[in-house]
Order: sequence, then C-alpha cells, then structure tokens
Amino acid sequence: MKIICSKTILLKSVNISLKAVPSKTTMPILECILINASTNQIKFTTNDMELGIETIVDGTIAEKGMVALDAKIFYEIIRRLPDNDVTIHTDENYVATITCEKAKFTIPGKTGEDFAYLPVIERDESLTLSQFTLKEMIRQTLFSIAVNENNRLMTGELFEIKNNCLKIVSLDGHRISIRRMPLKREYSDKKIVVPGKTLSEISKILSGEVDDQVSIYFTKNHILFEFDQTMVVSRLIEGEYFRIDQMLSSDYDTKLSVNKKEFLNCIDRATLLVREGDKKPIVIDIRDNKMELKIDSSMGSMNEEIDIEKEGKDILIGFNPKFLIDALKVIDDENIHMYLMNPKAPCFIRDDEETYTYLILPVNISQNQAR
Amino acid sequence: MKIICSKTILLKSVNISLKAVPSKTTMPILECILINASTNQIKFTTNDMELGIETIVDGTIAEKGMVALDAKIFYEIIRRLPDNDVTIHTDENYVATITCEKAKFTIPGKTGEDFAYLPVIERDESLTLSQFTLKEMIRQTLFSIAVNENNRLMTGELFEIKNNCLKIVSLDGHRISIRRMPLKREYSDKKIVVPGKTLSEISKILSGEVDDQVSIYFTKNHILFEFDQTMVVSRLIEGEYFRIDQMLSSDYDTKLSVNKKEFLNCIDRATLLVREGDKKPIVIDIRDNKMELKIDSSMGSMNEEIDIEKEGKDILIGFNPKFLIDALKVIDDENIHMYLMNPKAPCFIRDDEETYTYLILPVNISQNQAR
Repeated sequence: MKIICSKTILLKSVNISLKAVPSKTTMPILECILINASTNQIKFTTNDMELGIETIVDGTIAEKGMVALDAKIFYEIIRRLPDNDVTIHTDENYVATITCEKAKFTIPGKTGEDFAYLPVIERDESLTLSQFTLKEMIRQTLFSIAVNENNRLMTGELFEIKNNCLKIVSLDGHRISIRRMPLKREYSDKKIVVPGKTLSEISKILSGEVDDQVSIYFTKNHILFEFDQTMVVSRLIEGEYFRIDQMLSSDYDTKLSVNKKEFLNCIDRATLLVREGDKKPIVIDIRDNKMELKIDSSMGSMNEEIDIEKEGKDILIGFNPKFLIDALKVIDDENIHMYLMNPKAPCFIRDDEETYTYLILPVNISQNQAR
Repeated sequence: MKIICSKTILLKSVNISLKAVPSKTTMPILECILINASTNQIKFTTNDMELGIETIVDGTIAEKGMVALDAKIFYEIIRRLPDNDVTIHTDENYVATITCEKAKFTIPGKTGEDFAYLPVIERDESLTLSQFTLKEMIRQTLFSIAVNENNRLMTGELFEIKNNCLKIVSLDGHRISIRRMPLKREYSDKKIVVPGKTLSEISKILSGEVDDQVSIYFTKNHILFEFDQTMVVSRLIEGEYFRIDQMLSSDYDTKLSVNKKEFLNCIDRATLLVREGDKKPIVIDIRDNKMELKIDSSMGSMNEEIDIEKEGKDILIGFNPKFLIDALKVIDDENIHMYLMNPKAPCFIRDDEETYTYLILPVNISQNQAR
C-alpha cells in the first residue's frame, strides 16, 4: 500500500479515529487504526466493540492495499511531522514507512484481516439535525448520567421521538435532565438508549456549526451518526428506560425568577467552604423578593442575598450545591425560572417552552441548620 | 482589625503570598497568611521556614490589628468574590468576617503571635537588575538542577559575582547550564547557592518587564529580593559549590551551526519512539554539511537529515535526547553553535559572547546501534 495525504488532513482524521480506540483491551488489534486503501477511497476505521468510527481521508492512492497501525504511535508521529505531504508506504510484511520532507519513520504494522469491522447498518428513515443542535442537546443533558455501572440504563441517555419532537433525557437517581426539540417534519415514534460514552465522544468530533448537518439512523441494536466524511456506529443499551413522566409535575407553590450568573457565582462561592466528599447542603431561604443562600461547615460559614422575582409562598429548602451548579452551567438563558412545591418535593428549572427541564431533588435540612 | 481593599489588589497580594505557603507542614500556623495592619500599612506575610514573603497591600485601615488566616481558604474566598471593595473585619476571638457586596463569609483566624517572622536582613550593597533579566536567567538555567536531594548543592543554583559579571550556574551530574551577564557598575565578589525552589517561586512572582527593577541583597545565610511592593527572603544552601571551571574547555574538533527550531523539532519527533524510562540515546551522525539523527527502539525507528554548517572533523555521537531538548528550548537564538571534541567528551552549546553555555555529556553508543 502507498498513499499520500497532507499532514493536516491526516491529523484531523487520526484525531477523529482515536475516539474509538479503547484505552485498555485484551485484543491488541483494536489498538490499531485500520488504513484501508484497497478501493478508490482511503478510509480509517477504529472500533472498541461498543463504538466504531469510519472516516474518509482525502489523498492519493499510489498503490492499493490495507494495513493496521498502532493508533497512538501513528498519532504521535503524524502530530510531529512538518506541515507537508506525508507518504505512507507498507511492504509485504506490513512494515510501514512514513516519510515527510526529510523525516522518515519505520513502524511495524499488521494485516487488517483480524480487524473487527463495523456492523452494517440498514439506512432507512434518518433524522437530520444541525451539528450545533445535537452537540448542544448532548452538552445540556450528559452531565447527569450516572457514572457507576450499577444500573446500565442510567449510564446512557434516552433518545425519544414522539409527536414529531426529539427528547433527550438523562438521570442519575437524584436529578433528571430533559432537552426537547420540535422536528421539522414527520417521523415515526422511536425510543432508544444511547451509551453516554458514545455521546461524549461524538460531541468531541461534531463541528458544532449551525450549517453542518448530521444524519442519525436507528436500528434495533445500533445507532449510526453520519456527518461530514465520518460515520459513527454505536451499540445501544438494552432495556426499557425509566418512566419519568410520572415524576414530572407542573404544579408549584413557589415560582421564582433569578439572574443565572448571579445565582451560579453565589453557589460557587458557598461551595468553597465544603470539603470534597462532605455532603453539606446549601440552604436557600426564599422570602419576599429575596433569596438568601447559606452554608455552614467546619471551615467557616457564608451567606449572601440575591434579588429575585417571586410568585407564591416563601420556602426554605436545601440542595446539593453541585446539582444546582451542573444545571445552571449548561443553561444559556440570562434569567431562569425555578418552580418549587415544598422542602421535600423536587425543584424544577425550566423555560416556558420546556425546551429544557431540570428536576433536582432537595436535601433534608434540619431546623437548626436552617436559620 | 478592620481593613478595606479592592478585590483585584487583594487577589494579587494573596497570589504572591501563597508562593511561600508550605503544602505540608507540622506547624499549622505556617499554612496561614499573616495580615498585619498594626501600623500604617497593610502587610501580608507568609513563611515556609526556607522561603519568606512580605508584600504591602494598598487599602484602608479602619481599625488597626493583626490576624493569621488559613491561606488556601482565604485565597478561595477572595478569588470568588465580585469585583468590588472587600472588607475584612476580625473580632476579639480572631474570627474574620469577609464581606463584599452582599456576600458575607465568616472564617476562624488565629492570633499572629506564633507566626514565624521573617529574618531581618541587613541591607548593604545591593545588586539591581531588570526583572526581565533575572526571570530570563533563572528560566534558562533552572531546568538542569538535580531533582533528588542526594546532593543538596545540586538542588540549588550558584549565583556568582566576579569581575563585575553575574554568573548563574546549575548542574545535575550529566550537564551544566551557565548564564553570564556583565554588570553595569562595580560590585564586590560573591558566591552563594540559592535553593531551586526559591528561584522557581520568585520567577512566578516577577513581572518579567524590562522596565521593572529588582534589588538583590546577600548576607551570609540569606538572599533578599526586593521589587515592587514585595520582599522575598530565602535561606541559602550551605557548602562550597562544584568547581566547574576545570570542566569547561574551549577546545573542539568539530564546530557546527544549525537552525535551532529545526533541530528541536527533529529531536522531538525522534523521542516519540522512546518509552518513558527507556534510556535510548539519539544518535547524531555529522558528516560534511549534514547532520543525520537516528533512533531505534522496540516501537520502530526514525531517521532524519538536517542541513548544517560545519568546521572540522566528522563525528558520530549519542545523547540523551531530553538533555538536548531542555537546552534548546530555553535558547532564544535562531541558530545555535555546537562544539564537539570526540564521542566521549562533553558537547558545548554556546553563543560567541558566552552569555550562555550548555555542557551536555554524551551517551555511549555501541557500533551496531550507530550505523
């Protein structure tokens, strides 16, 4: 095999491919990028058996062929080469010679025969979004998946199409994040659970431009994202996702509107008095048109007042500050609305159109902690 | 005590003070910043018993007094406050209340009585440099001090004033770095060894501006740096520094001139094939007007040619690539001169005025490794 590609294009393609290279594996072939130039196109493929990526690389094929090269070493070599054309040439023993200007690298390669090829996905109905929208929807929900694997379903996100609306949901037992987006045309209903890792990797590859599109195909066991010159296939998480509708209520006794940045900075200040692992709640005392935040710990105490607009009853409620911070950080609105019922009922942060809904469970606060 | 300072000024002063707060100590008082407003000036003092810093903080003293506050908590609080005036008020139990706009923090403090005050340094003759020069001289030598403490003298740098020239030297047994600077007026001869940690911390505080000055005072056991509103005192390392003059030779059999960036990038490319901890030398084959770099490892092999200008004999020599990289990184010249004698003698990189000299010992290469 002999191919010639520019360093810039190679580096971009290798960077994309690396996202599906497992950091630990018992199958050494999976640590490789499969370079396939056996047809009229150069393709890079990587596969960690859950997530697979195939990307087309612009370049010249001087001699057809195929080789699997260690992904990390290949990346390190390409990264350090001068900005110029790079030639990758393999001999009959799959030894690859990589040359660029006067630099010449020789590294061992493998036949691509043992490589775990990506599953073939039947492309029927596709959902097409702007890359910007998908990347944003992932960013605004992914933070509340569960990190430990005790419940597999919690480590993924629900993608639901219903009534021509796409809904992405994540939850970890303490909070639920929901992003909704009306779709421009009719789609059949779907409900699948995508692994969080897939979504995290894909949002690193997506350009995030409003004008760039991404097409999504669903099958029983897989999801396929197609965009630019790249195809990302992922297994789905099996099982039925949690019924969240019964947890969502639109009733409230207190509604308040607060400047997001002010609220976020204030919680951030309060949490510095909490040692990591220490589960100190932040106490929020809502009275008239003020919100007072209070925290008390072995390191000291802090309190601060913020002006708010309020409808309904006064309330005293406690939260894990991290959960508030996580949600506030991903909201782009200048002002947010919070809906509260009582100190034991979940709090909702949502906009009027319900494009986003964040449910956060409160923390019990003893009376002496409170005032 | 009650003082009022702007958040910006406080943050800058706390940042400076933190450089002399020990990360581990058996004396909890040393983890504090001493805030002294008992005279007409606000002063912050920190001291890790080797390095001490005192900095003057602009602000208003509403009530004279003194308190020691945990440095890290104090820093975290100040950092997160809004950009406005900050009031620090302590009661008779040294409990400090820090307020800024509507935010109010309360943290415990300590009397400053147990605080380890800085030694009083007699200011006689001072050496005055621009902060830029001192910062550069430290940066260009500090990388080659020894990291382990087996030989205390190697963990510091020699500051030598002789014949109205300041010389800073570091060495670690494999290499020597020397920076020289002629002084503008007459000074008496001096020879002291300053701890590397002191120099590392001080170069973080120095502005690095050409127009800002720093004055240096020497006593038998201490060095004092005075600049802006800050005073840094450090203990010296006792003992007689290594006699390096006999290791420096101006004889050579090969002199070459090479583009620094090209050489550095090339070594960088070669080292990616070396696993950490693996002591693979880079082989440099100097022939005619070419320098060929070669490396061979279990991961693969690499070679590259660079154009050079050469006087004298051809030579084949091996180096620890890290030592070459470290030296090349801190040299600002576009082209560098290397002086070589034979494959077992040290190599010198130096400019014509000898403002810098880097001595690097070669590594033995077996003949089969070489060609």
